[in-house]
Amino acid sequence: MRVALDLMGGDDAPSAVVDAALLVADTQPDVEIILVGPVDVAERLLAGRGTPGRLRLAAASEVVGMDEDGARAVRAKKDATVRVVHRLVRDGEADAAVSTGPTGATLAAAVLDLGRTARRPALAVVVPTAAGPVVLLDAGATVEGSVEQLVEHAVLGAAYAAALGLEDPRVGLLNVGHEPGKGDPLRREAFAALSAAPLRFVGNVEGHDVVRGGKADVVVTDGFTGNVLLKGLEAGLQRAGADLPVSAVLLGVDGVCVVGHGAASAVDIAACVGVAARAVQQRLLDRLAAALEGQQPAVAAP
Amino acid sequence: MRVALDLMGGDDAPSAVVDAALLVADTQPDVEIILVGPVDVAERLLAGRGTPGRLRLAAASEVVGMDEDGARAVRAKKDATVRVVHRLVRDGEADAAVSTGPTGATLAAAVLDLGRTARRPALAVVVPTAAGPVVLLDAGATVEGSVEQLVEHAVLGAAYAAALGLEDPRVGLLNVGHEPGKGDPLRREAFAALSAAPLRFVGNVEGHDVVRGGKADVVVTDGFTGNVLLKGLEAGLQRAGADLPVSAVLLGVDGVCVVGHGAASAVDIAACVGVAARAVQQRLLDRLAAALEGQQPAVAAP
Repeated sequence: MRVALDLMGGDDAPSAVVDAALLVADTQPDVEIILVGPVDVAERLLAGRGTPGRLRLAAASEVVGMDEDGARAVRAKKDATVRVVHRLVRDGEADAAVSTGPTGATLAAAVLDLGRTARRPALAVVVPTAAGPVVLLDAGATVEGSVEQLVEHAVLGAAYAAALGLEDPRVGLLNVGHEPGKGDPLRREAFAALSAAPLRFVGNVEGHDVVRGGKADVVVTDGFTGNVLLKGLEAGLQRAGADLPVSAVLLGVDGVCVVGHGAASAVDIAACVGVAARAVQQRLLDRLAAALEGQQPAVAAP
Repeated sequence: MRVALDLMGGDDAPSAVVDAALLVADTQPDVEIILVGPVDVAERLLAGRGTPGRLRLAAASEVVGMDEDGARAVRAKKDATVRVVHRLVRDGEADAAVSTGPTGATLAAAVLDLGRTARRPALAVVVPTAAGPVVLLDAGATVEGSVEQLVEHAVLGAAYAAALGLEDPRVGLLNVGHEPGKGDPLRREAFAALSAAPLRFVGNVEGHDVVRGGKADVVVTDGFTGNVLLKGLEAGLQRAGADLPVSAVLLGVDGVCVVGHGAASAVDIAACVGVAARAVQQRLLDRLAAALEGQQPAVAAP
């Protein structure tokens, strides 16, 4: 199991990333880390720390900064760390990519270098609740919504939840009330489409159901609403001293791609690597492909 | 100052509402409560409790239940408590209406019996944060968004914040990132329109800014996103044991209308009455009307 890790991603990079790599070497024996970035930087930070055998370096000379337009920057910088991690996955040299760099740049690089498997990719976040984990998607990969997209993302989210061990997961549509007929035209149409999809659709759920859990294992919404809600509830949970989601998995690209929070600590980044490793072990990509295929209407033989 | 209070609104009505009315009589000496509902129910609950002089009853024989379609039910039930509270305001017999009944029914009744002053009404909620109060709107009155509506609601929200004592309030647009150019087409267009409006527009803000405060005093969004975020952050704040917003003020109708949380306690309902009384004292309706007028482009004399 080889995980390509972006050396330059996140507020405390590169030092927090190097600490994370060493932590993984200590605590995740089946994972080999490929640290992707300027080799001199990595070597300087690793000097005298007894670099373990399951850690190696891959060169990438450019960095996408927090203040850059992510999509534009990744196009211009072919040798950016956030591009090379995904190319290693594409070329079969790594099994998964992890970056805690700017989310927009990471998503753009993943789509560019891995390619899409779904019409639109979705960021799936696991929110820990007292009633068990809740998979929220899309947390901001695609800001515009459509009925087809909500159904596709619901299918991807259910397959991801199943990979996490949630059997036959309940899928809810994020809305302004639980009664059918609630919401804007997009939600009303999506309610009907989700009811007809090969899913265990439990109807509408509300903002508090993502925090409290219990109603649905997967909550689907458009990337605009999902991003606003996630940031709001992260701030609320932080005030409560509760566990925060530290990683998001990008669903709908042709590789395992885990995006960490920009403020991630070394422990958080190591947790992201764990999420990536588990996704590979659980054959996430195969599950997602099978789910998307099952969503297609059956075509009768001619 | 006369506040019409819906006897039958909320999970613990009518007893919590009667307790609230007596609490107001004890603690808010300038407020006279008009308790609106079935007179026999009110009299039974008030019996032997030394009904104070600043509390009187107004008859309303019908109730809108939690499980009814709010808009339809208020049309059918002309003598519903939630309609009578607003008619008392319309007819000059009360200065403000307070209900903790189903939000949809309360909004429909307010629009029906008071009439609109804005194109679309907005629910404004004051979120307490460490950096001071943040006015979030629309929290769910109008689920569909448009550029004109976001600008109108921003103008209403700023006037409301000013009435709360926030001088020259900073207005932020809820979005998925703080940089200009972020978001869906609606936000990108709204950003330009808000920049040109007679407002202290500070640009985009994110979900966490509503919980943490400090970036903007007023955060404007469409009613779908606002409702989802409010419910999510309420659940998060509840887990943190922090203060929750207990009331929302409906802006854009021709009267002061305060909507309480369905789970409101007697203390919460008394706080809603306090919010209504303060809005009347601060001449909220005049401020809103002046703000909407200022928003109109000046017309040159012929």
